[in-house]
Amino acid sequence: MAMGSVHRLRVAIAQINATVGDFDGNLKKIIKAIEQARSLGADLVTFPELALCGYPPEDLILKPQFVGDNRKYLERVVTASSGLSVIVGFIDAGDGPYNAAAIIHDGKLADIYHKICLPNYGVFDENRYFHPGKGCPVYVIAGVGVGVSICEDIWHEDGPVSAQAHFGAGVIVNISASPYHYGKAEYRKKTLARRARDNRVIIVYNNLVGGQDELVFDGNSLVLDEKGRLLAQGWQFAEDLVLVDLDVEPVATTGRNTTTGDQEQWPTTGVVVSESPSSKPKPTLPRRQPYGSYELAAEIYHALVLGTGDYVRKNGFGKVVVGLSGGVDSSLVATIAVDALGAENVVAVAMPSRYSSPGSLSDAGLLAQNLGISLMNIPIERVFRAYLDSLAEPFSGTESGTAEENIQARIRGNLLMALSNKFGWLVLATGNKSEMATGYTTLYGDMAGGFSVIKDVPKTMVYKLARYRNSVADTELIPPSVLAKTPSAELGPDQKDTDTLPPYELLDSVLTAYVEEDKSVEQIIRQGVAPEVVRKVARLVDASEYKRRQAPPGVKITTKAFGRDRRLPITNKFRG
Amino acid sequence: MAMGSVHRLRVAIAQINATVGDFDGNLKKIIKAIEQARSLGADLVTFPELALCGYPPEDLILKPQFVGDNRKYLERVVTASSGLSVIVGFIDAGDGPYNAAAIIHDGKLADIYHKICLPNYGVFDENRYFHPGKGCPVYVIAGVGVGVSICEDIWHEDGPVSAQAHFGAGVIVNISASPYHYGKAEYRKKTLARRARDNRVIIVYNNLVGGQDELVFDGNSLVLDEKGRLLAQGWQFAEDLVLVDLDVEPVATTGRNTTTGDQEQWPTTGVVVSESPSSKPKPTLPRRQPYGSYELAAEIYHALVLGTGDYVRKNGFGKVVVGLSGGVDSSLVATIAVDALGAENVVAVAMPSRYSSPGSLSDAGLLAQNLGISLMNIPIERVFRAYLDSLAEPFSGTESGTAEENIQARIRGNLLMALSNKFGWLVLATGNKSEMATGYTTLYGDMAGGFSVIKDVPKTMVYKLARYRNSVADTELIPPSVLAKTPSAELGPDQKDTDTLPPYELLDSVLTAYVEEDKSVEQIIRQGVAPEVVRKVARLVDASEYKRRQAPPGVKITTKAFGRDRRLPITNKFRG
Repeated sequence: MAMGSVHRLRVAIAQINATVGDFDGNLKKIIKAIEQARSLGADLVTFPELALCGYPPEDLILKPQFVGDNRKYLERVVTASSGLSVIVGFIDAGDGPYNAAAIIHDGKLADIYHKICLPNYGVFDENRYFHPGKGCPVYVIAGVGVGVSICEDIWHEDGPVSAQAHFGAGVIVNISASPYHYGKAEYRKKTLARRARDNRVIIVYNNLVGGQDELVFDGNSLVLDEKGRLLAQGWQFAEDLVLVDLDVEPVATTGRNTTTGDQEQWPTTGVVVSESPSSKPKPTLPRRQPYGSYELAAEIYHALVLGTGDYVRKNGFGKVVVGLSGGVDSSLVATIAVDALGAENVVAVAMPSRYSSPGSLSDAGLLAQNLGISLMNIPIERVFRAYLDSLAEPFSGTESGTAEENIQARIRGNLLMALSNKFGWLVLATGNKSEMATGYTTLYGDMAGGFSVIKDVPKTMVYKLARYRNSVADTELIPPSVLAKTPSAELGPDQKDTDTLPPYELLDSVLTAYVEEDKSVEQIIRQGVAPEVVRKVARLVDASEYKRRQAPPGVKITTKAFGRDRRLPITNKFRG
Repeated sequence: MAMGSVHRLRVAIAQINATVGDFDGNLKKIIKAIEQARSLGADLVTFPELALCGYPPEDLILKPQFVGDNRKYLERVVTASSGLSVIVGFIDAGDGPYNAAAIIHDGKLADIYHKICLPNYGVFDENRYFHPGKGCPVYVIAGVGVGVSICEDIWHEDGPVSAQAHFGAGVIVNISASPYHYGKAEYRKKTLARRARDNRVIIVYNNLVGGQDELVFDGNSLVLDEKGRLLAQGWQFAEDLVLVDLDVEPVATTGRNTTTGDQEQWPTTGVVVSESPSSKPKPTLPRRQPYGSYELAAEIYHALVLGTGDYVRKNGFGKVVVGLSGGVDSSLVATIAVDALGAENVVAVAMPSRYSSPGSLSDAGLLAQNLGISLMNIPIERVFRAYLDSLAEPFSGTESGTAEENIQARIRGNLLMALSNKFGWLVLATGNKSEMATGYTTLYGDMAGGFSVIKDVPKTMVYKLARYRNSVADTELIPPSVLAKTPSAELGPDQKDTDTLPPYELLDSVLTAYVEEDKSVEQIIRQGVAPEVVRKVARLVDASEYKRRQAPPGVKITTKAFGRDRRLPITNKFRG
């Protein structure tokens, strides 16, 4: 494989926010980025995994029309590529389908790479859709040996990247759609730095950004040199076009096997895409602000804002409506909604009952005032009384309890849905992960809504996020009284969450072990938690699966969210 | 491999109804079947795929405690196996985990077979959990060469079965957990008969029976001789112990390679489990009733009865409650519930409104009388009025429409859930597939419930099932007036379903093409359906994904049910 004499490669990383199935919208973003990259003198512009059709398209892949359309739109990317090289993710039907990257140069489709390592764990189902690729060519792009890989391919130490490096690739381009969970950005940086060092390659890591149902792709694209040092980084939770000049001299040919290679696992061949870089003079790159990492609470908060905003926008809604109880959960959700959509697009509703504390309504009012959102007040007493009257006969002789509590929650759900149906507002549900886990929540009541913003946020983290948001505001957006009050569902007289649940600090630690780490009851008891607490919590989690199955989607921020990340049967007699 | 001189093998096929995670219950069924088989002189008793832990255990497999417990319970099966051979499905942790079959003889675990072909399409996610097996031994059981395979293994013409047949297996035992959809029983029989003929083997096919969340395993175990002729068949939709004497002479050794073999794909080795059959005298087998196949409507009806009954029982409920509107959907659901659980365990509730037709209440009353179930009457007018009063201010100046309609449906949902919370009854939702597909249904209203019995039954099939059930009853259980009336949600004045939807015959044909067959809008138009109808229906299906995501589970009876069988994103701009 011939290596040219060029020692700098200008790469543009287009960290775009693609939408599943929006071929027109995605193509527009792709062409715009190509044009920008061209005007900035880039030799190569890269796009995320499946950028053309959005990720994950799920069973749309089983529709031949979808795969066919995606191929037609690829032609339009090819047409738009004059004067530079483009690497873009799409679905290659071929004898697959394959999760593919098109390698395009100057109006021609030079080659297609097929993803080799298909993730089929956690939220991923790629074995359901794709065949694994069988080879990993090294491309000569602007005279530089470039190995192309897709997402999971680079997470395996002995994956295709090492084969490509061995056979002449000095630069590895990895196009990704890597979903966010807290701490993942740091993990990616460390793993990719090790991969760069171990293989003495420059890594160009192009991640997707944006929300898609329960997933948030956090962008945070990376460029690491052959010693694992960070050269450039894309914004987290926002679109970006990262321009970087790669000094390819240290990785060009020294010590590499530059002939066409053949490994046992994946045959490596050489494909010349372009022998030399564009001879046009390159403009000087603008200096970028140095990238600062977010603290944990800030990072999670931004993930929730992006995930919520994208769900609302991409599903065609303008406004959202949220019920305010005066508690911390609904206060945080309203604040996130305002940050995601603007105060003018958030409507708040207080729905006080006979059990609401005096502070509930005033706290809701203060929050709405701080956020600059309108607040309706619809007391539920009249409707509640009508239900109790209607049910007087079947309920006669019974004690008031869960049934009467849930009626109130469901009246609120019904009122919010009525406003949604009448005015086209999306209802945001306000339950947190600790409640979703233990079933301390009412199906069709507080669980009602189109999107459940904090369903993967444990209660202890809800407080941290509220305090973080206050810390970066001019004033205390979320009133201190909201943060100070004792958590209560306020569905019965003098009710407190701790009447039913362990204190949240304890509860959340057990939930992390039982849900996210799949530890057994016995293991958690051995960690020092009281056996009756562990057994009770585990029993609540197991018994609430049927409720979670009917919950609206919400943003995944932990290593294991309820939903397709954790697929447990409802009918299940296992206790352990 | 030594073949004994025996020419008859007595096999007992234990078609049991296992429950996921119920190790104690499943073990009890397994040991009982072993004892029965022993007393009937069986040489070999077989059990379904993953019979020990239930199928599909889903992410329980990710809990080490679950897999560990399953292994401990296997030891108790081994202990119980004195005097005969046992083949039973379990999870083998090993270097897997593997979807495995234990081959047990007379108190010893002789070998473990690992499933080779892992299904990862439709409702299946086996690549998420299991490693594929690498070899397929031929076992000598009671002197006969037996190849063991698991479910999907036998569906592939060039799968392990042909390798086993080639290297000395005269009998193929396939243990399965094959979920029902209409027509599948006939398909299985044809495919297995071809497999038997092509490989000149006797096939013993042991399927699971019972409901598990959305799936019904229909039993219908089969024994086919080497010419593909049916020798015996287990009941469909019921537990069974099928005893059969196999004449193994035609398949014993003639023309086979009886040495230990080695194929390129899967190495085949010989493992001697038992050289000769039990020398004890064998009792004469009782003569079985000949098995009659169900007609389509009958088959589907029985699937719904089993799926509903098992969901209720396995989740620990005694009684169910169902709202009766006087329409065909809720009438059918109540009838299914009575057949599944007995009239004494079904409570009906009529919840008439200002828009209910005069016949609604009388038809509901007549049905309840025919079924022998109690009927409550809870009019919703008072609660409805209270909602309208409470919403008078925000709704002022708007026209009455969907919002007001849905309030009524949600009042009914709330009333049923209140009865559920108060008395511990499971709510059965009554929506059909045509409604679920088009979103002609109210989230938290008529969709509310723990189990959605007919959610996969198209409206046209609802009528067929109702007529079938009437045809086998002494009297017309479902009143003729119910079957004769024009379908209406009765949520507005003089409302008819056809105000919003195409006639159901037309609608269902479009839905079959668009949903089950993944045909494009253009393809369906080319089949001769009016373009505006196809576009409207497709648009309704696409736009209702968010509702379906919050629906309760219900029995899968078609080739593609909503749910994990059809995984579409909610956020999705594709129209095609």
